[in-house]
Amino acid sequence: MIVTDDRVAPLYLAPLERQLADAGYATTSVVVPGGESSKSLAMFEKLLTAALEAGLDRKSAIVALGGGVVGDLAGFAAAAYMRGIKFVQMPTTILAHDSSVGGKVAVNHPLAKNVIGAFHQPELVLYDLDTLKTLPPREVRAGLAEVIKEGLIWDAEFVSWCEEHIRELLSLDRDALGYALYKGCGIKAEVVSRDERENDLRAILNLGHTIGHALEAVAGYGELLHGEAIAIGMVGAARLGVRLGAPQEVYEVTKRLLVAAGLPTAIPSHYDTDAIMKAMMHDKKFTEGTMLFVVPTAVGKVELNPNVSAAMVREIVDELKREADRL
Amino acid sequence: MIVTDDRVAPLYLAPLERQLADAGYATTSVVVPGGESSKSLAMFEKLLTAALEAGLDRKSAIVALGGGVVGDLAGFAAAAYMRGIKFVQMPTTILAHDSSVGGKVAVNHPLAKNVIGAFHQPELVLYDLDTLKTLPPREVRAGLAEVIKEGLIWDAEFVSWCEEHIRELLSLDRDALGYALYKGCGIKAEVVSRDERENDLRAILNLGHTIGHALEAVAGYGELLHGEAIAIGMVGAARLGVRLGAPQEVYEVTKRLLVAAGLPTAIPSHYDTDAIMKAMMHDKKFTEGTMLFVVPTAVGKVELNPNVSAAMVREIVDELKREADRL
Ligand SMILES: NC(=O)c1ccc[n+]([C@@H]2O[C@H](COP(=O)([O-])OP(=O)(O)OC[C@H]3O[C@@H](n4cnc5c(N)ncnc54)[C@H](O)[C@@H]3O)[C@@H](O)[C@H]2O)c1
Ligand SMILES: NC(=O)c1ccc[n+]([C@@H]2O[C@H](COP(=O)([O-])OP(=O)(O)OC[C@H]3O[C@@H](n4cnc5c(N)ncnc54)[C@H](O)[C@@H]3O)[C@@H](O)[C@H]2O)c1
Ligand SMILES: [Zn+2]
Ligand SMILES: [Zn+2]
Repeated sequence: MIVTDDRVAPLYLAPLERQLADAGYATTSVVVPGGESSKSLAMFEKLLTAALEAGLDRKSAIVALGGGVVGDLAGFAAAAYMRGIKFVQMPTTILAHDSSVGGKVAVNHPLAKNVIGAFHQPELVLYDLDTLKTLPPREVRAGLAEVIKEGLIWDAEFVSWCEEHIRELLSLDRDALGYALYKGCGIKAEVVSRDERENDLRAILNLGHTIGHALEAVAGYGELLHGEAIAIGMVGAARLGVRLGAPQEVYEVTKRLLVAAGLPTAIPSHYDTDAIMKAMMHDKKFTEGTMLFVVPTAVGKVELNPNVSAAMVREIVDELKREADRL
Repeated sequence: MIVTDDRVAPLYLAPLERQLADAGYATTSVVVPGGESSKSLAMFEKLLTAALEAGLDRKSAIVALGGGVVGDLAGFAAAAYMRGIKFVQMPTTILAHDSSVGGKVAVNHPLAKNVIGAFHQPELVLYDLDTLKTLPPREVRAGLAEVIKEGLIWDAEFVSWCEEHIRELLSLDRDALGYALYKGCGIKAEVVSRDERENDLRAILNLGHTIGHALEAVAGYGELLHGEAIAIGMVGAARLGVRLGAPQEVYEVTKRLLVAAGLPTAIPSHYDTDAIMKAMMHDKKFTEGTMLFVVPTAVGKVELNPNVSAAMVREIVDELKREADRL
């Protein structure tokens, strides 16, 4: 069963169906509306109904053709259908280099993102770079935010490389993009393989996500793209890092690179600080009230700091809002 | 978070809350309507909402206080909430000796039972036999069907023991019940530990369930108790076994024991054979159209037979209906 969204379907569904039919596979396809709002329990149920009606059994597979939304949604359906059937990721966005590796699948709850899900590893991740050519430029930039994140948590050299090649990346130069996605997937896979069930190390992949997820929730899903929200979140984390003793350079490099990538680095000043803080409290990275925060300690290096106070985060949020006023 | 149903809550919820509070735990409780219809995605969503509103985090646990319905539902919520938090089973029915061991958790889809779920092992199974005293006699009998099943798939001696002690079991004699549940849980745990992800061996636990689940679906969830449906299914499987070469004794012992336990052994004759067969086709034990059927080969011994034709099963279903006419 192929799962895709209504923007990807007109571009790539028919050729995929044709190729699978040629290879002797019987397929059925489900097209969901594009956008984050499809990562819902209602859409999850729709997929399961379609799977039952099409007669999928325990040897069937679900193929996600699309971005992270389709990957997360279809992946959770594959995880839950008959307690888990095979799953194939065919990412068609840059951001999905991240979501397609690692096995985290989920849908959103109105109260918080990604809180209903599973760990379900794909059998195969098939990345066809040619599909990226039709991506809207804003999605390209948002996707690069996660690529940059992989550098910031793990590899200072790759961060420099990104700064040097940011134009090629933005114009989807095939060589540059191929290298960056290979690097990005590699770092993700490296971190995940050392900690598949997210006990500790894996949490570093959430750099920028604590503030980022809260911004997405407050903005209403969809208003801020995920990559945009975490770009702002990474600037916040860098500010926090500097405040906790990291060299000033961490903040400067982070911000310069994200600005060069055309990404937002400040919180729109009309966003309500209380609402942002409240959304953060619902986030699953808070354990027994203690904030577990991914904080940079140097370029290409982060630590998990369990002692960040809500008060300190609130100050950072306010600074990120003032930064918007200055722009 | 304690999850229970509206029949168990008035009996055992307050003491449990009190004991947990005395032990220093903060708890929140969710009471769902009693009965199979609570094993739904809607109720699953309700639990997740309650968990979020109560602020459950990744170190929290979900406790299922009740029968298999509450166990399966709460277990799937624990499996999916933040991609998996701790889970404790406190079974209060005889049948739940089965559902509380093994880690299979699920809710139903209107088109088929248990097709939306996960494998999620409980941290602890706490069985307080005293809670069984309030069980309605019909539930006692239905629960014993699964205990008998454990014997029929694994242990001829235990089958004889059950025949000898069926009256004590029906009257909830503490020693007999303790032994039978200990045996039942032990056989289940033994089978599961050899095959946790249900690749092969574990499927033998489904003796009687292929026909049984179809009957439950056709009856409308709730009309036939699960244990009653699989009692009929086990008689069907025994008939099939004899037809495929097992000694006649297999059928006789199975039927005699189930009758002694006060369980139904025939399909009510107004049930539609076509509808039963159709429901079976939706069942997850059918892989690529082939029927994988658990068939007795001797008392206390079964095999997984992948070559049972739908036509043969249909004949068995018709025989089970004619048996009802004769009663
Ligand atoms: N599971 C994980 O580990 C993980 C990691 C990171 C992000 N995510 C999730 O990923 C989601 C975001 O992923 P995304 O940014 O890919 O979003 P997306 O799937 O919504 O795709 C972005 C937009 O681009 C369109 N699109 C996709 N491919 C296209 C193509 N080739 N050409 C033209 N348009 C195309 C889509 O229809 C959509 O409108 C979020 O829900 C986030 O939570 C998951
Ligand atoms: N997960 C598994 O491996 C597995 C195995 C077998 C069955 N199951 C599932 O278990 C379910 C059936 O379990 P069940 O028979 O326990 O059903 P149940 O949970 O509905 O309980 C039966 C009835 O007894 C009531 N009850 C429970 N405990 C009581 C008590 N101590 N005193 C008085 N009343 C009490 C309940 O409110 C309910 O009305 C089915 O949904 C079946 O699919 C799961
Ligand atoms: Zn992300
Ligand atoms: Zn059962």
